[in-house]
Amino acid sequence: MEIKVVRHVLDANNAAAAANRNVFAEKRVMVINVMSSPGSGKTALLIKTIEALKADLRCAVIVGDICTTRDAERLAVCDIPVVQVNTNEFGGDCHLAAHVITRALDTLELDEIDLLIVENVGNLVCPAEFDIGEDVRVVVLSVTEGEDKPLKYPLMFHACHVALLSKVDLLPHLDYDLAAVRQYIHQINAAMPVFEVSARNGQGLDAWHTWLSRQTLLKIANHD
Amino acid sequence: MEIKVVRHVLDANNAAAAANRNVFAEKRVMVINVMSSPGSGKTALLIKTIEALKADLRCAVIVGDICTTRDAERLAVCDIPVVQVNTNEFGGDCHLAAHVITRALDTLELDEIDLLIVENVGNLVCPAEFDIGEDVRVVVLSVTEGEDKPLKYPLMFHACHVALLSKVDLLPHLDYDLAAVRQYIHQINAAMPVFEVSARNGQGLDAWHTWLSRQTLLKIANHD
Repeated sequence: MEIKVVRHVLDANNAAAAANRNVFAEKRVMVINVMSSPGSGKTALLIKTIEALKADLRCAVIVGDICTTRDAERLAVCDIPVVQVNTNEFGGDCHLAAHVITRALDTLELDEIDLLIVENVGNLVCPAEFDIGEDVRVVVLSVTEGEDKPLKYPLMFHACHVALLSKVDLLPHLDYDLAAVRQYIHQINAAMPVFEVSARNGQGLDAWHTWLSRQTLLKIANHD
Repeated sequence: MEIKVVRHVLDANNAAAAANRNVFAEKRVMVINVMSSPGSGKTALLIKTIEALKADLRCAVIVGDICTTRDAERLAVCDIPVVQVNTNEFGGDCHLAAHVITRALDTLELDEIDLLIVENVGNLVCPAEFDIGEDVRVVVLSVTEGEDKPLKYPLMFHACHVALLSKVDLLPHLDYDLAAVRQYIHQINAAMPVFEVSARNGQGLDAWHTWLSRQTLLKIANHD
């Protein structure tokens, strides 16, 4: 019976996600859904990414949190549209559902956006199950979390298109096996691009930004 | 309607948790439920805790993961009973539910256990909603996750009785404000004891072990 209920919720979500996807296609907006454990450094990374891309691509962000507007306040330095969603209003949801994104879109001018970045609630499990109509799913994994997370949370790594290994500036102070984490990621998702990045010292950000720009231009071009 | 369904699931869970709690009281077993984000270092900490306490207290562990038996294999060095639960069998659950614990108890000899440690699935959101019949709820927060997590995930910090700030050996390499995180924790849960610990260099473990031993002896004594 529980399984039936979950299916029902996911079916409703998929319908709302499909509607979002049509809107994004019509408006030629590239949408990325950024997911991770709490504290992997999503916001710090996204600030760097927006600063690097905003000269060429018109960016906006939807930030999901259960409580607080702290991430939105941090992202405000980027001087682009930022919408904060507090899932507390939706019963403390541990993920962003498609209908929540639909409501957030009311506050954005999609004709003036090329790249919409959704920073999901910090949770390596549940957000992977909820399609929001995005084009690209990004998982951020901090090197401080250990190498085994792709094997322990396979759904997230299976569902995502690209992985960012964050906080690599801390590698000299950790016992961390980069070859192992890459092997575990590719065991779950054989073709997944993996970028090693640090928001703190800028390492690896250029390669990630080039990849993301290309994906965005491809999506926009496809609809011309 | 969704809220009604969630209530139904939580009501069923609370009934199973109450039954577990009766069993633990009858068998004089202290049960702690250890929760955190993925990669906070729960397993490494618990290995140290068990090594320190097992001479005086008969310990056992139930480890929850969506997939893999990696944590159980790591805990096997402690030479105590370890039960691995894979929630994948239960539809990829993002938390340990009370009935899952009930089933795991079948494989343990409760008459020979003083302290049962439950290492929950790595998730700072959902496990806080599911009572499993435990005496003490422990939240582990790695200092690499940033200071703001108590404000962003208040339910977890409100539901728990004690907080462990882990990986403090990394503090010299981070921009981290210990006073701020303590303030945020106490904003959510005014009387919460907070232990700064490192499984790597042993810092702070004695204080945490003394606290846990005392709580365990209190529970056991209460039933004499």
